[in-house]
Formats: sequence, structure tokens, C-alpha cells
Amino acid sequence: MRQTFDEHADPSFGPRHLPLIRAKLREQGLDGFLIPHEDEHQNEYLPDANERLSWATGFTGSAGAAVVMAEKAAVFVDGRYTLQVKAQVDPSMFEARDLVEGGVPLYLEQEARPGQIIGYDPRLHSPDALGGLKRAAAKAGAELKPVNANPVDLAWAGERPAQPTAKVVPHDLAYSGEAAAAKRSRIGLEIGRLGADAAVLTAPASIAWLFNVRGGDVIRSPLPLGQAILRKDGSARLFLDPVKVSEDLPAWLGNAVSLEPENALPEALAQLEGQKVLVDPAQSSAWYFDTLEAAGAGVVRGADPCALPRARKNPVEIEGARKAHERDAVALARFLYWLSTDGQINPPDEVETVKTLEAFREASGALKDLSFDTIAGAGPNGAIVHYRPTLKTNRRVRQGELLLVDSGAQYLDGTTDVTRTVAIGTPSAEMCERFTLVLKGHIALGSARFPAGTTGTALDTLARAPLWAYGLDYDHGTGHGVGSYLGVHEGPQRISKAPNSIALEPGMIVSNEPGYYKVGGFGIRIENLVTVKPAEPIAGGERPMLSFETLTLAPIDRTLIIADLLTAEERGWLNAYHARVAAIVGPKVEPKIGAWLNEVCAEL
Amino acid sequence: MRQTFDEHADPSFGPRHLPLIRAKLREQGLDGFLIPHEDEHQNEYLPDANERLSWATGFTGSAGAAVVMAEKAAVFVDGRYTLQVKAQVDPSMFEARDLVEGGVPLYLEQEARPGQIIGYDPRLHSPDALGGLKRAAAKAGAELKPVNANPVDLAWAGERPAQPTAKVVPHDLAYSGEAAAAKRSRIGLEIGRLGADAAVLTAPASIAWLFNVRGGDVIRSPLPLGQAILRKDGSARLFLDPVKVSEDLPAWLGNAVSLEPENALPEALAQLEGQKVLVDPAQSSAWYFDTLEAAGAGVVRGADPCALPRARKNPVEIEGARKAHERDAVALARFLYWLSTDGQINPPDEVETVKTLEAFREASGALKDLSFDTIAGAGPNGAIVHYRPTLKTNRRVRQGELLLVDSGAQYLDGTTDVTRTVAIGTPSAEMCERFTLVLKGHIALGSARFPAGTTGTALDTLARAPLWAYGLDYDHGTGHGVGSYLGVHEGPQRISKAPNSIALEPGMIVSNEPGYYKVGGFGIRIENLVTVKPAEPIAGGERPMLSFETLTLAPIDRTLIIADLLTAEERGWLNAYHARVAAIVGPKVEPKIGAWLNEVCAEL
Repeated sequence: MRQTFDEHADPSFGPRHLPLIRAKLREQGLDGFLIPHEDEHQNEYLPDANERLSWATGFTGSAGAAVVMAEKAAVFVDGRYTLQVKAQVDPSMFEARDLVEGGVPLYLEQEARPGQIIGYDPRLHSPDALGGLKRAAAKAGAELKPVNANPVDLAWAGERPAQPTAKVVPHDLAYSGEAAAAKRSRIGLEIGRLGADAAVLTAPASIAWLFNVRGGDVIRSPLPLGQAILRKDGSARLFLDPVKVSEDLPAWLGNAVSLEPENALPEALAQLEGQKVLVDPAQSSAWYFDTLEAAGAGVVRGADPCALPRARKNPVEIEGARKAHERDAVALARFLYWLSTDGQINPPDEVETVKTLEAFREASGALKDLSFDTIAGAGPNGAIVHYRPTLKTNRRVRQGELLLVDSGAQYLDGTTDVTRTVAIGTPSAEMCERFTLVLKGHIALGSARFPAGTTGTALDTLARAPLWAYGLDYDHGTGHGVGSYLGVHEGPQRISKAPNSIALEPGMIVSNEPGYYKVGGFGIRIENLVTVKPAEPIAGGERPMLSFETLTLAPIDRTLIIADLLTAEERGWLNAYHARVAAIVGPKVEPKIGAWLNEVCAEL
Repeated sequence: MRQTFDEHADPSFGPRHLPLIRAKLREQGLDGFLIPHEDEHQNEYLPDANERLSWATGFTGSAGAAVVMAEKAAVFVDGRYTLQVKAQVDPSMFEARDLVEGGVPLYLEQEARPGQIIGYDPRLHSPDALGGLKRAAAKAGAELKPVNANPVDLAWAGERPAQPTAKVVPHDLAYSGEAAAAKRSRIGLEIGRLGADAAVLTAPASIAWLFNVRGGDVIRSPLPLGQAILRKDGSARLFLDPVKVSEDLPAWLGNAVSLEPENALPEALAQLEGQKVLVDPAQSSAWYFDTLEAAGAGVVRGADPCALPRARKNPVEIEGARKAHERDAVALARFLYWLSTDGQINPPDEVETVKTLEAFREASGALKDLSFDTIAGAGPNGAIVHYRPTLKTNRRVRQGELLLVDSGAQYLDGTTDVTRTVAIGTPSAEMCERFTLVLKGHIALGSARFPAGTTGTALDTLARAPLWAYGLDYDHGTGHGVGSYLGVHEGPQRISKAPNSIALEPGMIVSNEPGYYKVGGFGIRIENLVTVKPAEPIAGGERPMLSFETLTLAPIDRTLIIADLLTAEERGWLNAYHARVAAIVGPKVEPKIGAWLNEVCAEL
């Protein structure tokens, strides 16, 4: 099994580790220290060695922070994690605070005292975030000071896991669709166009995409942790721990890329003296800015030049995504068949659900990893948006309940992410009404036609309007970008209420995942991945439009649909989608599952 | 008649005025000069005395700029005005350039030469815009230099109209709904909360709102041109040309407001030495920032603290808006009746249309002004979004054509803005299809329910989606804020594609005006004003929602509606709206018009 169901931290972490951290603070003459969740790579998932916040506090959520002072400490989490932080963090050691309302800056303003020196590790904070923190400390008369040696790392030293050492391997042109030399050349031109001589790239996904390589340093995504300097002429220096260099990597990278150990990076940055260097303040930590400025380089602040080109998948990547989704669809069909037969008689618990689905995916022989830990939420657990079943929370679905399963796979040709909500036994009228409203939103977004330049902020409304009309809503985004055998959450495009100026462009892959959650009751989410493509021209149409092609192929539970709530157009979309699922997936599965697919995909 | 139909400028302006301006540049030792459309008050409409761009070039559009160099000159307009600029500006004097793509900065980069000194009037440029201009000039090795005396004003001196001197008068509590002292007090608290000691207010609409006064310095809106300093304790200094002070104004303002001549402002700013002063960089020109910084004040950059409170109308203002719209509806009913009877037999021309509508509004006895020059676009003229009929362009509607009429009125209790598109004779199938699609978008937006925090960017999509589905769109925003007997275009909220983080809040008034334009053919726009209010609770609803109350009361031409394209819900909305129009307006008009209203408002 790839997924495990135990807890990686517990409330004893604070009492055990806080004294060790405070001892190191005293040695360094610091009155306090900031511990963000982010690590050196500002990446969504961290290697175990960089789970500093969890080691210090016990809190394992995907976002948060802590501040350790001599006499007190606080942990900061957002609304998703208010219950979890109570279960995981010892309240006698850490005051729990809101990460968003006031957050760390307000804490510094209120709790720091004049003259205090509070340390931070400049490798872990973006320059933008640091600005606010410094201003807040200054208001209290305290000062933030960068440290060379992170006191948490020093305190953790003996027990700390090793840094990951997975080999970095070539990612074949059959999957990437564009030679690395061509990518380097066109991104180099863009760097020049932005008035820079070179760019410092620190996002692992950009390194992977640009050089057509994949790694294994981070669970659930094939990312190589490293850095690169790309010059405007397309030549590059790639910094990787030598132990991670696979045998065929140097030849794959070619002559225009010099492969160097990670510890050569500071010297390489210093050599950029007098040059204009593009760095992304949302992606690269303050350390890069400080180091380049100290070296006398001219820093050009701008978005990672690989981010948008990476998001616009080429035809080979799109065809790979289609193949990956067809392969994934076989596992999903077997899984949903199991839930609709055995699962209805002997309802599974969440852990069994996760294991069964993983086994079906593993059976493809092509599974490289899950794209994230499967969320299987039975009954009320389905209403916890960021739920992950553990042995402690594991729950068996009961008759009349919903089971929400959000899962995905990493294949060499593509990354998948799909959510289906299934009724066990007979669902209530309320469940069906809410499910149908979520489906209406899913269809409105999935069938949208929109002009070039339209952002995900504009389209988000289509997915929510049917729920809004009933006085309902959901507290998460409607869609995130997805990588090509890379991160399952990938920017810069997204579909959400939050203002975002990135237009959806052909080739981009995003999720379409509206939901509804009744706390203590049930959760509903319907998620397909879709890719943006030019829309079929329409008679009388005057402007080119874009539309979505749905990649995910899995039936939507018809026992939860109130057909009368759907318009003729919505029913048409659903019938066409189900016909496609049956036609593509049916021939690839056992005849009895094919027959079942025909049934659940029949016209509504 | 309030509206006139002649041109205020012509292509002879450039040849006549450019040499005069260049002579003044030579006297001041300048190699060039920037002429923005904006004036000292950064307001949408300018008094004649500040129409510098039009005097210099002949161009009368509502946005634009010019650069005058010794040997060449350029005028900059956006896509709306590419035809107009050709008709109004002599191309041998001014090269016409795109205001948006590259704009003035690109021109400076390409055309300025090393060592050149290019002047600008710091009173006319926002600090944000100026930053980009300075960087562009620097790239060319040239320098931008602020002038004390504007060379255009010097050149214009003899012919220049006088600054307006309309009296500033009290605006009664029966219309404003909140005493000025209460407004000053709460805005003062907000200034303190933002860490400032005082705010400099330069937006005429903010001056009018804060002090509950109205003026007449600018056509089509009752704005007093002036400035104010509001302290955090709620006391204020108001700077107005003494000739504009009406007899009862000092008593109305009260003891906490000192009324001072406009030329006392520089000294008053200098007295803010050592204080923190809030100024809006989007609203106040660079001159304020330069002057405050030179005085040793600490400038706090932030939004005009009156902007959001002014946008959230109070119950008295909302009730006033309802009354203003009912009054306006009587004029509209008479006008639309005229168009549907006489107008069908002897179709009017655009000027007759404008005059007839104005006369009906004037007959109310309450008309203070139009809220903008009425747009009456017959046939192809309707497709020109920013059209205003002149004697030169005036066109008679023909049978089978559409007439688009966008108009509004200023009444003491509210400002109106309404567009109706009417078929003369029998419309084509294409006209009806497009009209129905626009109507579907209008209804989708007008009937939306949405949670607190929703922006106009999110809602804009609802109005466009029906057009997008047919491969169509329109190139203007869907809605703008509207003042309460103030500007007909008022921020900060708006409904448009452009990313905007301002949430729609109860009491805000916005327009709902999707459209469709077939160049050379016809134009369609359906515009109502709506106000945001809490939505009626719905059974099973879990979250409070907001919705729109439609203020405008005028029938929508049913001869242009294809009923089969409407859903049952859309038809329900239209029937309910028409029933309301007939019920409210019918009793206020002549019996024959009431009977006609009942007919055109009957169930569809």
C-alpha cells in the first residue's frame, strides 16, 4: 500500500521539542523564532526532513505557522484546521490563533516587546510575507533578524530524517512533447524580453518541466528539489545534490546545461554581479533576494517564466492526459461497480475504500504514485473538506449515508484527480436535492463557452449560481490547475472567488469540483478534470470562443439526481457525458462491469 | 433644451493652437509637454475651462492624451474612439496612437531623445500614472519636469472660458439621510483606524457627499469643485472659491468646518508637517503627494475614505432613488408610448428623439439636469457604443431598424440611467434572437442571489453567458455604480470583466446593462438600475444571500423577444417585472398610456 493511515505527529511533540528549540534560541541570543509551514522550496508538499512546524508543534495541516518566544508560543491555522489543531497541539504549550485574521503579524504586534530580537530563517519566507512581519515587529519595537543556522534544525538534529535522495531521471519526449533545448531557448527569449539577463528558478515543478526530468523527493508528486539559473541565451546551470544524479542525466541535459552540486548555488548567485536577474517573489524565498542584492545583481521581480508555459499543455501532453484518464477510468469503473454491488450489501469503511481503489489503480501496472492521499469520507466525515482517513477516525458507511471519494493517480503520461459521491442504500430527499444542485453547477461550468481573456474568477460563478439560488454555497475553490505528471495542484490559473487575473488558455488543465457540505451530516463533491480548447464554431457566432473538454471518465451516481431539477440542456450534457463514458470505458473492463456501466450510463 | 447637438471642437484646433503651445514651451525651455484628458479634479466630466486636450487637438472624447514635442505631436485614444479621432484631429499635426497598447510611455521611449526635458503639470497626473511615464522617459535618456505654469493654459489664456462659479448649496437631510456631522465623525474614526491624523479629499463627489452639499461646476452632475482636509476628530477645512459660497452655506456647514478660499490650500497642506495624511493615489494628483512630502507630512496611501460609505446608500437615499425612478418612469412611459404610436408611423430622427424624451422629463418640474447626454442611436448608429447624436451625424430611423436610447436624469432625490431598445416596424429574426439573448443575460444578473463578498467581476459572467453560448459578446462593462443626485458613474464597485476586489454590499446602486452590437447594422442594450439588498430567505437555505431590487420601471419591447428562447424562470421574472411597471406607473399616466402599458406589460 502506498497510503498509510496513521498519524505522523501527536500532542507530545510540543512538550518534548519546545524546550530543545528554546535552548537553541538562548544559544543564539534570540528572544523568539518564526516557524512557517513552508520549506526552502516553497512547495505544497514537504519532504519529512522539512516538516519543521509539525515537529515543533504536532500540527500536520498543509498550511500554518508558529512563533516560539521564551515564555510563550503560538500556533496559527486557518478555518479548515480549527478542530484538527485542538486534537494535535498541546494547548498548554501553544496558544492556537487564526492564521488569516491578524495571523503572525498581529501576534508580533501584540506580544513582542521593545528591544526583542526575533529570528527567522530567510530561506523559508517569501520577501512579500517578510515585509509584513518586519513592519509588525517594528510596531512593537522589536526586530526581526535573519539566522544562518535554523534553531529548529539544530534542536531536531539527532532525530531529523535525512534529506530525500531520489534519483532525477529523464522524462521522455513521448510524454513531454517538447525538447528541453527548445523550452530553454524560448524561456530564455522571454527572460530577455523582460529586460533580464538570467532567471533564478526555484520551483521544483519548473525545474522538472524545463529540463524534462522527474524526481521523487516529495511524496505524491515526481518533483526534483533543486534550483537552476537559466540565461537569456537558453544555457543553464542546474543545482542538484550529486547523489540524486542518475546515470543518464548528464547526457540527457546536454552541453548547454552544467550540472552542479546544490552547495555551489551561493557562489553561482554571487557571480551574477552586475547582471539583471529575474526572480519570482511569490515563489523564491527572501534568501535569494538578499543574496543577489548583496552580490550586486539587479533583481527583476516577476512571475516564474516557466509557470504559464508549463500550464499551457502541448498536444502531446493533452493526448497523454487523455490516455491517463482512460486508464484511470478502468480503475474507477471497477471501484464504482464494487461500491454499487458488494458495497451496497456490506458497506465498507473508509480505509477499505481507500485500499480497494488503490488496488484497482495499482492493477494497471502503470501507477507511479497517488497524486494525493485519497479522501474517503463516510457520512459526516464527508463534510470535512480536508479530511484524510486515519485508523483513529476511520468510519464505516451506513445505509442511507453518502460516501465521498476524492482521489487521483500519477502516471508517466498524466496526473488525474477525480471526486465521486455515492449513495449507500437510499439517500434522503435533501441529499438528492443538494447533489442535483451541485451537478447543475458542475454542468454549467463544464459546458461553458467563453471568450479568450476570461479568468477563472469569472467562471467560478457559473458553478455556484445554482447553489446560491437555494441559499447554499461551499467554502473552497471550484478548480485548480493540474500538472502533466507533476503536481496535482499547479498554478497560475485557478477557478475561484478570489480575484485572479490569469486568463484560461487552450491546453490548460483545471479541475471542475463544486460541492456542498452539511456539517455533521454529509458531503457532496463532483469533480472532473477538464482541458481548455477552442470551442466548436456555432452558426451565427461572431467571436472565437473557448470551451472545456472533459478528461475524467466515470459515471455520476444517478440515484442522487432529481431529473426534474435539470433543464433539457443539462440533461443533454449528462447523457452525452455518460454515453462517452460507456463507449470508451466499457470495452476496457470485464463484461459484467461493462453491462453495469451501460445501465448506470443510460439516458436519463 | 439642455442637450445641444453641435460639435465643440474641430480639426482646425490643432493647426491653430499647436504653434501657440510650442511658443510657450520654448519660453519655458521645454522640449515637450504632456497633455492628459484629466484635469485638476480627476473627474469624469470637465468644466469647459479644463478641456485642454480638446483645445489642443480637437478631440472631444472622454479619455485620451496628447504629447507635444517641438517637431512632432501625437494624440492617444482607445479603441472606442479610433473613428472619432480621425474626424476630429488634423493628422498632419498629430499622429494618432493607441492609448492602451503602449500608450504615452511607449511614445516617450521611442520618440524622446537623450537630454530632452519634457514638462508635465503635476496637478493633472496621478502619482501611479506618472511613475510609468518617468520610467519611460528615463529609458530614452530624457527627463520629465514638473511645471508651475501650464503652457497650454498660458497659450489658451485669452480665449479660455472662466472657471465655473456655480453656487454650492445645502443638500437637505430629506435626501441625504445622514447629517454631515455624523458622516464627518465616522469617516474621521476610519481615518484614525488607518493610522492617519487627517485625510485630503479631492474627489468632488466625496466633498458633496461628506458635507451634504451640491454644486453646479460640472455639466450633468451637481458637483462642487473644491478640496477638503478632514481630521480624525471629524473637524474639517473646506476649500472653495468664495464666489461659489451660497448665503446659507456657512451655517449649514457648522462650526466644525472652516470654509476657506481655494488658494489657501497649499498653505493648509504645508501646515500638516509631522502629521500622517491619507491621500488616494487613484484620485488625487501627484501635486498633493509632492506638496505634502515637501511639507514633511507622512503620506498614507489609501482609498478615499468616503468612497465606500458613499456607495452604500442609506434607507433615505434608497427611498429617494425609488421615488426618482417612479418619476422618471412617467416620462419613459410617455416617451415609449410616443415611439410605439407616432414613432411607428413617422419614425423620428435621433435629435427629435432626444428632444422629445427631454421634454417629457422636463414636464415633471423636478428635473435638475440630464445625468448625461442622451444617446439615441438609429440603425447602425446604435452599434457605436459611445455615440452622441450631433447635427452632422443625426439619422432618421427607418422601418425595420432598431432605435437604442440610453438616457438619465438628475433629480434631488436620485440619479437615473436607463436604456431601452425599440423596434421600428418589423424587426429581423437576427435582431430578435440577439435581443432575447441580451435579455436573458439581463435577467440572469437581475435575478441573481449571491453571498456577501461577491464582486462585480464574479457576477459579470451571468450577464454574458447567454451571449457566449452563441459565440457573441459585448465590449463594455455590464454595470457601473450610480450616485445619489451625484455622478451617474460612481465607484468603487462595478460589474465587469476587469478584476475588481470590491464586494457588492447592501445599498449599493449599480446598472445592469448587457448589450449586443452589430457594426454597421444595429445596437441592442437593456439597462436597468438595481440596488443590492438582503435576499428573501428561502426554505432550506443556510446562508444569508444578497439580491437586486430593480429600480428602473419601463417596459421592455416585447416585439423583440423570442419567447421560446426563455426558460420558465426567465419568463416569470419578465412577467413579474412588467406587472410591477404597469401597477406602479399606470396610475400616474394618461388613461390611454395606462391602457397601452397594460398591453405591453401583459403576461408573455
